[in-house]
Amino acid sequence: MKVSFIGLGKMGQAMADRIIGGGHDLAVYNRTASKCGDLVGRGAKLMGSVADAARYGDVVITMLENDAAVSAVTLEADGLVKSMPKGAIHLAMGTHSISLVKKLAAAHADAGQVMVSAPVMGRPPVAAAGQLGIIVAGPAAAVEKCQPLFAVMGRRTFDGGLDPVGAAAGKIANNFVLACAIEAMGEGFALAQKCGVPPESFLDILTDGLFASPAYKIYGKLIAEKGYFGEPGFTATTGLKDVLLALAAGEAVAVPLPSANVCRDRLLSAVAHGDGDRDWSVMALEQARSSGLA
Amino acid sequence: MKVSFIGLGKMGQAMADRIIGGGHDLAVYNRTASKCGDLVGRGAKLMGSVADAARYGDVVITMLENDAAVSAVTLEADGLVKSMPKGAIHLAMGTHSISLVKKLAAAHADAGQVMVSAPVMGRPPVAAAGQLGIIVAGPAAAVEKCQPLFAVMGRRTFDGGLDPVGAAAGKIANNFVLACAIEAMGEGFALAQKCGVPPESFLDILTDGLFASPAYKIYGKLIAEKGYFGEPGFTATTGLKDVLLALAAGEAVAVPLPSANVCRDRLLSAVAHGDGDRDWSVMALEQARSSGLA
Amino acid sequence: MKVSFIGLGKMGQAMADRIIGGGHDLAVYNRTASKCGDLVGRGAKLMGSVADAARYGDVVITMLENDAAVSAVTLEADGLVKSMPKGAIHLAMGTHSISLVKKLAAAHADAGQVMVSAPVMGRPPVAAAGQLGIIVAGPAAAVEKCQPLFAVMGRRTFDGGLDPVGAAAGKIANNFVLACAIEAMGEGFALAQKCGVPPESFLDILTDGLFASPAYKIYGKLIAEKGYFGEPGFTATTGLKDVLLALAAGEAVAVPLPSANVCRDRLLSAVAHGDGDRDWSVMALEQARSSGLA
Amino acid sequence: MKVSFIGLGKMGQAMADRIIGGGHDLAVYNRTASKCGDLVGRGAKLMGSVADAARYGDVVITMLENDAAVSAVTLEADGLVKSMPKGAIHLAMGTHSISLVKKLAAAHADAGQVMVSAPVMGRPPVAAAGQLGIIVAGPAAAVEKCQPLFAVMGRRTFDGGLDPVGAAAGKIANNFVLACAIEAMGEGFALAQKCGVPPESFLDILTDGLFASPAYKIYGKLIAEKGYFGEPGFTATTGLKDVLLALAAGEAVAVPLPSANVCRDRLLSAVAHGDGDRDWSVMALEQARSSGLA
Repeated sequence: MKVSFIGLGKMGQAMADRIIGGGHDLAVYNRTASKCGDLVGRGAKLMGSVADAARYGDVVITMLENDAAVSAVTLEADGLVKSMPKGAIHLAMGTHSISLVKKLAAAHADAGQVMVSAPVMGRPPVAAAGQLGIIVAGPAAAVEKCQPLFAVMGRRTFDGGLDPVGAAAGKIANNFVLACAIEAMGEGFALAQKCGVPPESFLDILTDGLFASPAYKIYGKLIAEKGYFGEPGFTATTGLKDVLLALAAGEAVAVPLPSANVCRDRLLSAVAHGDGDRDWSVMALEQARSSGLA
Repeated sequence: MKVSFIGLGKMGQAMADRIIGGGHDLAVYNRTASKCGDLVGRGAKLMGSVADAARYGDVVITMLENDAAVSAVTLEADGLVKSMPKGAIHLAMGTHSISLVKKLAAAHADAGQVMVSAPVMGRPPVAAAGQLGIIVAGPAAAVEKCQPLFAVMGRRTFDGGLDPVGAAAGKIANNFVLACAIEAMGEGFALAQKCGVPPESFLDILTDGLFASPAYKIYGKLIAEKGYFGEPGFTATTGLKDVLLALAAGEAVAVPLPSANVCRDRLLSAVAHGDGDRDWSVMALEQARSSGLA
Repeated sequence: MKVSFIGLGKMGQAMADRIIGGGHDLAVYNRTASKCGDLVGRGAKLMGSVADAARYGDVVITMLENDAAVSAVTLEADGLVKSMPKGAIHLAMGTHSISLVKKLAAAHADAGQVMVSAPVMGRPPVAAAGQLGIIVAGPAAAVEKCQPLFAVMGRRTFDGGLDPVGAAAGKIANNFVLACAIEAMGEGFALAQKCGVPPESFLDILTDGLFASPAYKIYGKLIAEKGYFGEPGFTATTGLKDVLLALAAGEAVAVPLPSANVCRDRLLSAVAHGDGDRDWSVMALEQARSSGLA
Repeated sequence: MKVSFIGLGKMGQAMADRIIGGGHDLAVYNRTASKCGDLVGRGAKLMGSVADAARYGDVVITMLENDAAVSAVTLEADGLVKSMPKGAIHLAMGTHSISLVKKLAAAHADAGQVMVSAPVMGRPPVAAAGQLGIIVAGPAAAVEKCQPLFAVMGRRTFDGGLDPVGAAAGKIANNFVLACAIEAMGEGFALAQKCGVPPESFLDILTDGLFASPAYKIYGKLIAEKGYFGEPGFTATTGLKDVLLALAAGEAVAVPLPSANVCRDRLLSAVAHGDGDRDWSVMALEQARSSGLA
């Protein structure tokens, strides 16, 4: 399949590499062209503009960091909507707001193109191993056509429904549930600590049974050991962005999200206290502050 | 060891049975004496009053349903405090409020006795198999003395600190984190559903990775399949009682718990809508109601 | 009318004095009898026990500080229920929880007595001037019989319905709305301040128009001028008690109160930070803390 | 003074009319020119484009409904920034987000112009009477220059500080405090009602004392009498927009706003239930729903 790939950050490079490995004909474009070097060395064609990339692939993948970037690439003059042939597929694999996904899908539909939304779960090493979880949503025929690409990039796919918005929502809601888990642990640890329970013991209680899963093991440990003072895995500022995506999605479809509000407030307090660049488990530090523990 | 056991509900019977099986000398007392039948058949001595039970054991275990029951048994005339010998241990294994545990521990201390708090995690079949998780808190020597009993009743113990309050807090905080997980899922499912994501698919997304643990698998399934309309495992009313225990603990030690507030409000709405006797995953139905989905 | 008055704190003394001034035949009882001195000098009869007071009046007024006190006076051996004649009225004028009011009303009914609940709004000088606002609830005939007493103690009455619980609820809900107003101002002032609006100017904006009332003028000024560092008018601890009364009332009748939750958390944080004895406008200091302003 | 006025809705017309009445030299522009008819009849000059209006006045007033409109007028080609002479003042009198105000102020500063933000409080009849409350923020000299205009349009001004953002924040925070008051009343009325207090009586309790101000009298009456089923004064959708402006302001300056979250959720539920076009006191209906009362 002829595939164009726009957005070659760490995730994008690992994913694009899998596509080459899968025997597909890959064209790449990145604002900073130097990031495409390794891929070109492995056979990818370097495109000089978004428009060139848009014209090349039957499927044009974008893996861009935020709404502004994917909006620019898609909607601006010489962007994807202007340049992709009729019938071509824009496979958007970044995590974007549902209002933007809705807007982009409509713009593509007006231009006779199709948009598939397929945000991924997993970090760069997982992507390099072709083990991403991929939430896929869009018209059935287009999704079908992308399956060979999902097969080389991912461990498995999840069905996000027929509207591209669904895949974005699935990803956003999953992240949001994680934020809530961190917040709940922050509260639980503060309560336990003020009652004399050693933090490592409360971690043990949580993760031995009901919550024996990565979310609680990883973040519970960060909280119990105050790992938020160390190297961040995912910053409070980025976490806040994710929670705001959930709240914005809730606004778009009229779903109140009281737990997301709690997370939002914690993360805003973290930012207010200068901790925006710390790991987002710093939410627990905010809980500790409000409990007179820090 | 000479052990008295007060409170022979389903959990109590299973736990007492393990103690007999462990070769200990067991005396039993229950308000409704008939519930002691099987245990007596297996060798337990039937006591005619709390006071008799109090005088018999080196360790007096209570496994009572709520604060009122354990308070009565412990503090009233002819209760444990009045009747236990100096140096004897009251091993309280029910889930009680931290303010009551504090009060009982003080009353026992004044009478030269010792209180150990050791609430358990697990349901009757788990208790029957001697596989409970037991959170233990109290003075080190007394805890040490109870170890043979924990060994026959439990899979393992968790350290709740030196103040009996800690074990209560550990149990309460663990239950509270579960309530928060259910609430977060309720919100996430409502958001996903209004964006077109099939519920079974969102369940799959959640439990495939970050949340691959019993709490999310069990309750996620109940929510995705509206299992709250079926046979309840744990009712909304009981869940509310647990959340109120967490909030009361937070009040006692000055820890704000915003996520617990959200759960409290959901459960109160469930009660207001006549769903107090449904499974507490009905919190998700309340979220659906507030989202115009039910 | 023959009236007994139990509970002669500052409020009680001022109210009892109005009753003497109204020409009624007053008997007084207080645990610390010395507080009755002035009233006895003005003609009140000093009673030696609750039981004596209970037997004297056609109406027995209690003005006690909290649930524990009124519960003891009413329910204990030789308390009001045991000693008041059939048909006599217990007029409870303190602010008590609705669950206790319900319990006391039932106990009186069982004993052939009547309970009227009539909590007051206003501080001692207002009581001394006979200008209290009085929320009244209870059976119509009993309320009617108490009108001459309300006439001398109060500026006016408010109808709390036929169930004594209603008057308690009206008072509790009014206090709760005040807590919410303070919290909202705290949030508004923090937002305004971080955007460069001088606090005195935001106070001016609020109270010039929509909120030109005592609640906003008094508490807005306390917040704008950080008056919570000065002499407290009403402490955070007492405010927390009031908010907890509202939450308990909500639990009793299944009404979620999300705004009360917010107030509760702020006040708990205030206590956690050692500010429980400051004026409860210190809620705004907690908001400032969570905003990185303090 | 030479003044241009852009945005002649009901508010704009009333305000522009006051400026003519004050003897100023007024030019008007509106996308739908017909709305300028009366003003032209009274001596205003009709401008054919934003650019013409931009070049005419020493002060260019905008009174536009939302961020999108003022952003277009200000930033697009032939907009205010492009066309206003150096030193001219853009006096923005609509209610806009603080992030947009910040952006517009910066754009004007780069072009050697000055922006003053001056959102107003009051409805069209108040504007027609020159009795608006005006919150003013911007560089002192520019604010000084606008004083004659404020004098004819307003009853008084409020000081929003030297950064235009402050005036927007003051207006937004004032509206937000109102939303909180409505929410708190909704909760209070639900609690009172379920305890047997007649709604008109609770309204009386609230507004007789602490809350004897327009906000509580107007909205308390709407709630007590379910006036939200009648003609809306201000819709839930518009109220939601205002609350979201407060939350966005909080995000911009890192101020958590838990009470705003509660209002947001209520209003989203109202929208979810098809009540977005009802008066925003319908928040109380949502509270009633969550309490099993509706």
